[in-house]
Amino acid sequence: MGLWYYETYRGRVKLGLKVRRSLFTKQSDYQLVEVIETEAYGKTLAIDGIYMTSERDEHYYHEMLVHPALTTVANPERVLIIGGGDGGTAREVLRHDAVKKVQLVEIDQVVVDACRAHLPDHFSWDDPRFELIIADGIQFLADAAPDSYDVVLLDGSDPVGPAQGLFNRSFYEHVKRALKPTGAFALQSEGPILMPDLFLDIVHTVRDLFAQAHPYFGPVPIYGAGIWSWTVASETLDARTPDPDRVARFARACKYYNCDIHRAAFAVPNDLARALVEN
Amino acid sequence: MGLWYYETYRGRVKLGLKVRRSLFTKQSDYQLVEVIETEAYGKTLAIDGIYMTSERDEHYYHEMLVHPALTTVANPERVLIIGGGDGGTAREVLRHDAVKKVQLVEIDQVVVDACRAHLPDHFSWDDPRFELIIADGIQFLADAAPDSYDVVLLDGSDPVGPAQGLFNRSFYEHVKRALKPTGAFALQSEGPILMPDLFLDIVHTVRDLFAQAHPYFGPVPIYGAGIWSWTVASETLDARTPDPDRVARFARACKYYNCDIHRAAFAVPNDLARALVEN
Repeated sequence: MGLWYYETYRGRVKLGLKVRRSLFTKQSDYQLVEVIETEAYGKTLAIDGIYMTSERDEHYYHEMLVHPALTTVANPERVLIIGGGDGGTAREVLRHDAVKKVQLVEIDQVVVDACRAHLPDHFSWDDPRFELIIADGIQFLADAAPDSYDVVLLDGSDPVGPAQGLFNRSFYEHVKRALKPTGAFALQSEGPILMPDLFLDIVHTVRDLFAQAHPYFGPVPIYGAGIWSWTVASETLDARTPDPDRVARFARACKYYNCDIHRAAFAVPNDLARALVEN
Repeated sequence: MGLWYYETYRGRVKLGLKVRRSLFTKQSDYQLVEVIETEAYGKTLAIDGIYMTSERDEHYYHEMLVHPALTTVANPERVLIIGGGDGGTAREVLRHDAVKKVQLVEIDQVVVDACRAHLPDHFSWDDPRFELIIADGIQFLADAAPDSYDVVLLDGSDPVGPAQGLFNRSFYEHVKRALKPTGAFALQSEGPILMPDLFLDIVHTVRDLFAQAHPYFGPVPIYGAGIWSWTVASETLDARTPDPDRVARFARACKYYNCDIHRAAFAVPNDLARALVEN
């Protein structure tokens, strides 16, 4: 059967991908960074044994993290990305004409190096509006001036390992302070079917801090969890109803996202609606 | 690591489930029928090594196969299910008060026996409106009187093995003939991300025959394909916009389905919208 790579979810579910070849393996100061070429999804980034992104499915994740927030904020000039060292989130942000400056704060230079070498289609890296900062995102946000960003995007891995400090109230308080009241914050909020505890914890914590906070849903095939979720929050804006004219300006370039998909993503299944009220 | 069960998709992707114990294994006249108890999804039916349904995720599949069609037809008195020997589809059909008669035509008695013994929560089997018929669904439909059903549901496995004849133009022509012009037909139409060829083939073939045919999407975690699809077709009805009053009559009993989910499921991703036009 040849070479296979397996991610294991809580010891109960495995997603195996048939591997053509291993392209990159390095233990950084923070984590094990690997790029493998898989039959199903092309070149695939894995960190500490967890699939992060791949050539053929990355648009599901990146388009959905970025566009609901960016189409909701009236004039998203200044955008901060925490994590996202593969560049896919920055690429989607830069589809929006209003954006004047994107800062991407990634803790691990090795992730950026691996992706620039092996996932070049994820991002061109040389847009003049783009700035790469290799630093600890928690400290960076703690030091950020208040009201300095229109959009903050948390593109971190799971709440374990170096990303753990990105998924708690203290971090979200820094986000809120750095964000303009007319801005929006979006983050991935885990797979609600296999990891309902993490999903509920993230949504509740964000809801406690922001006047508006709405989970939304879509597929990310390499996350093996049936459905994935993101959450978008704001002090003043409701991201659930997109403006078709805003969406029309860029969505033709998207592989997944469009105006119908934006609206549809906010439909909440009965069991999750009940769990969000009860837990 | 103990005992694991793996389904392999086209030799490229595997979904592994950790197994507590094997409950049932029998080679029937048609296929290998197994029931395993898995850590993640509870008791799980597999046929010829392919996951069919499980205690903890079956509602995603069954609610979405049934309710878009059943809420669209004005008075769904007579319903025919082809396949569906686990009973979950029949259970969802019987939530609709208008239903007077459900016939379920399953080719393999062994599937019914395995599910009655090991998946008892799927269905009670003794509703007076319900009739189980062990027969070849293709022949049954070929013999059916014209205009005799309000809804036909195809709850078959993949278009390989004994279910192959359920996924072609000749079968859909039998469906159309047996269906009233005011009725609707729904079927599972495969995972469009991992099996785009099967998805496109099913949707195109159904579209060639029915005046209205619309694919729709949702998660089915044990199908390991990121997202699943169904297609609903009719000579006269557009299933995309549900009547909230109709939905309110039964949807509180659903774990996944509600009015927002119904509408949202018909949002088509950009890449699939393009593929449906081009291919």
